[in-house]
Amino acid sequence: MSNAPTLLREQEVFATPWFSLMARTWAENSPPHYCIRTKDYVSVVAITKDRKLILVRQFRSAVGRETMELPAGHVEPGQTPEEAARLELSEETGHRAERFTLLGELIPDTGRMSNRMWCFFAEDAEPIKDHEPEAGIQVVLHDGPIGRVLTDGMEHALNLAAILLATLSGRLAVDLSRTTTREPA
Amino acid sequence: MSNAPTLLREQEVFATPWFSLMARTWAENSPPHYCIRTKDYVSVVAITKDRKLILVRQFRSAVGRETMELPAGHVEPGQTPEEAARLELSEETGHRAERFTLLGELIPDTGRMSNRMWCFFAEDAEPIKDHEPEAGIQVVLHDGPIGRVLTDGMEHALNLAAILLATLSGRLAVDLSRTTTREPA
Repeated sequence: MSNAPTLLREQEVFATPWFSLMARTWAENSPPHYCIRTKDYVSVVAITKDRKLILVRQFRSAVGRETMELPAGHVEPGQTPEEAARLELSEETGHRAERFTLLGELIPDTGRMSNRMWCFFAEDAEPIKDHEPEAGIQVVLHDGPIGRVLTDGMEHALNLAAILLATLSGRLAVDLSRTTTREPA
Repeated sequence: MSNAPTLLREQEVFATPWFSLMARTWAENSPPHYCIRTKDYVSVVAITKDRKLILVRQFRSAVGRETMELPAGHVEPGQTPEEAARLELSEETGHRAERFTLLGELIPDTGRMSNRMWCFFAEDAEPIKDHEPEAGIQVVLHDGPIGRVLTDGMEHALNLAAILLATLSGRLAVDLSRTTTREPA
């Protein structure tokens, strides 16, 4: 955009261990816009060899209850997004996969968040022997169809964006039992 | 969950005109969890009579550049989510539609945000006569397929979640030219 504003000042007004609240000034004598600065997100659409979608149940403070979600987390300093995705899949679910494919890089919330979300597809995932389960996380293997995964309680919008990318790419069938784990359409 | 934590204290630690940063304590002698409290979101998947998806281009401070998105906004006090969705469609895009259908109610970001996102499908949308365009917003009518809408720059994850709900409900075809605007599958 030719007339895009120029950032004049950016100030951290509050810091938490997980994110910072930033005040951004785009024009003199105008009030700042506030946004959240945090590490990039990764989300993993992972399918087992027998075509089950790997999900996690956990208590979420922000919404005050349990949710059912894709394995996901932050990209830590020094990690590539794919390394972060592999680590989240193994730590949260006790599964590993050879092949990770980048589905796309999205913006989590254009109005509030300045970070990116990296969406991966992991195929032929298999259990890791002697995995130590992560406290507070319950692993759910869901055999779809995707519509039923949603009505069964998957309601995290960022996850559903990753699911859309996986289905549009031909890697994930809307009916999971038709998902082939080698040859995307 | 039988052993779900109980919220002991919640404190607003920073307020902006658009949202508040909340510190939530779930256990004595434990550090708080921080989350963002704001009004609920609405997102509108709106299709014109000639099967074009109605999008808006605008500069977004949080990401420092222009984005292409669904019409969306907050549910203001006293509004129902559907009223908010109708207002956003008309104000941002200069279009109106008789029939709005609730596609689903999602969580925008289970890790950070405590609000909800209401996703609507609006069909047979038509231009409002003498509409005064909103400053800084450019309306884009896209004739898909959905995969091309994405590669053309629609990268807002919350929007893609609404698109997934619209396609799974049978109201939006992945190839927009096949979207029928009366009889969902």
